Amino acid sequence: MRRLKRRWSAGQYLCVGLDSDYARLPEVVRRNRSVAQAITRFNKDIIEATGASVCAYKPNLAFYESQGVEGHLALLDTVAFIKATLPDVLVILDGKRGDIGSTSQRYAQAAFDHIGADAVTVHPYLGAESLAPFLDRADRVVFVLVKTSNPGSGELQDLTVGSTGRPLYEVVARNVAESWNRNGNCGVVVGAPYPEALGAVRRIVGDLPILVPGIGIQGGQLAATVAAGRDRHGHGLVLSSSRAVLYASTGVDYAQAAGRVAQRLNQEISDTAHHSTQD
Amino acid sequence: MRRLKRRWSAGQYLCVGLDSDYARLPEVVRRNRSVAQAITRFNKDIIEATGASVCAYKPNLAFYESQGVEGHLALLDTVAFIKATLPDVLVILDGKRGDIGSTSQRYAQAAFDHIGADAVTVHPYLGAESLAPFLDRADRVVFVLVKTSNPGSGELQDLTVGSTGRPLYEVVARNVAESWNRNGNCGVVVGAPYPEALGAVRRIVGDLPILVPGIGIQGGQLAATVAAGRDRHGHGLVLSSSRAVLYASTGVDYAQAAGRVAQRLNQEISDTAHHSTQD
Repeated sequence: MRRLKRRWSAGQYLCVGLDSDYARLPEVVRRNRSVAQAITRFNKDIIEATGASVCAYKPNLAFYESQGVEGHLALLDTVAFIKATLPDVLVILDGKRGDIGSTSQRYAQAAFDHIGADAVTVHPYLGAESLAPFLDRADRVVFVLVKTSNPGSGELQDLTVGSTGRPLYEVVARNVAESWNRNGNCGVVVGAPYPEALGAVRRIVGDLPILVPGIGIQGGQLAATVAAGRDRHGHGLVLSSSRAVLYASTGVDYAQAAGRVAQRLNQEISDTAHHSTQD
Repeated sequence: MRRLKRRWSAGQYLCVGLDSDYARLPEVVRRNRSVAQAITRFNKDIIEATGASVCAYKPNLAFYESQGVEGHLALLDTVAFIKATLPDVLVILDGKRGDIGSTSQRYAQAAFDHIGADAVTVHPYLGAESLAPFLDRADRVVFVLVKTSNPGSGELQDLTVGSTGRPLYEVVARNVAESWNRNGNCGVVVGAPYPEALGAVRRIVGDLPILVPGIGIQGGQLAATVAAGRDRHGHGLVLSSSRAVLYASTGVDYAQAAGRVAQRLNQEISDTAHHSTQD
């Protein structure tokens, strides 16, 4: 959490989603390299080009798992590179895990100890008891899915629950803020396409960090998102973009293009964050 | 689905959870072997000893991921061995995945195409739209988490939904049965410690298969579970036990001991299933 606050204070709000898809890597990156080498080379170039604009990187595990052993090796090298070159940038492993306690223990070990992530994303459906092995790690950050960015997220998340008259996602946010966060290491996930939900969740969770996937290519309106989601200090948001940054160019200038898009996105966020706090 | 029905008709109801924990493997298995070799050897011995009693094997991904590349190799070898030696036994990859559609596509490819699983477990929280890459695979089985076996599963799953007066897990079961199952390839997951929930879900989902983790060491009362969960043919249940089978003995007789426990558990299930249908 301290590292996030340091980067926010330096005007670095963006998170780049390292959903690096081998099939979409530039030809110049794939040539004469193994799958692991190509993904690692691409990620390192993206990280060097975007490091000044970000507070976090977020590799989604699916893109690495789907490449088997080669993907696993690329993930290990990528995380090690971030930690060596940008030690105050958060590595959020986006695996959306959620299992019974004894199994969550294994996932927590894999994410935090084997891969070396600073933070993870988790499913809330099994309840806080099942997530204890994550929540007990006071030195790491646990982002709980609350309102996801996909078009069909309302099927369950928007259902009105009990006598509260409130949607399920607000109940999850309340439980996280009021009881799951006993170690002060929780955040929540709210998708950019839902600024009203983002505002409602911000009112519930106070100053907890909110991870917001889906800015950029998924069509989130950035200013509205920042205005709805910022905390009372104008901070508190980890705004994540993947494809708009990674695939800004498919030519030899892919890294420079990614750097420019990241800088522009972060500037837009920064302008809105500052503007909002002056309201 | 056809394979499950064939095994049920032959009186084979048990699922063995291959949650093979390297640290708990018998010394005789670990000696002079790499981690991958030891887990693979252990799994093959367990499979050979229990194959006559089961309709499915269920490796939980966490136990393999937490061993990195070695675990991944062991998982690939284990799945290949089951498919080669017991082609009509279902391989259920228990990963409890759930992400946005474009990412679910990667998880589905990893589970079905790269690893070669016949079935997976998935989280319902993002809704059916996010799970399309799984649900569209009509040749595979998708088990949706409904009521999980952990003690704290009620925190969200038992919340009453809106005007229905029903708990969230029943709403999930209804959605699966009424709309997610358009390709006839869905099942649901209900934990053994909750026989009342199991009965309620059976009434909602008709003849859909129900995967029931937690029999054996988690203290499920087997007869009550089978009576509550069986379908109108006395079938429909995939009853899963992990540690009670895998660690029946830690000596050189681990495989024979596992075989005996599996046979006894399956006999108990079979007796109850037949008894129930004669009521």
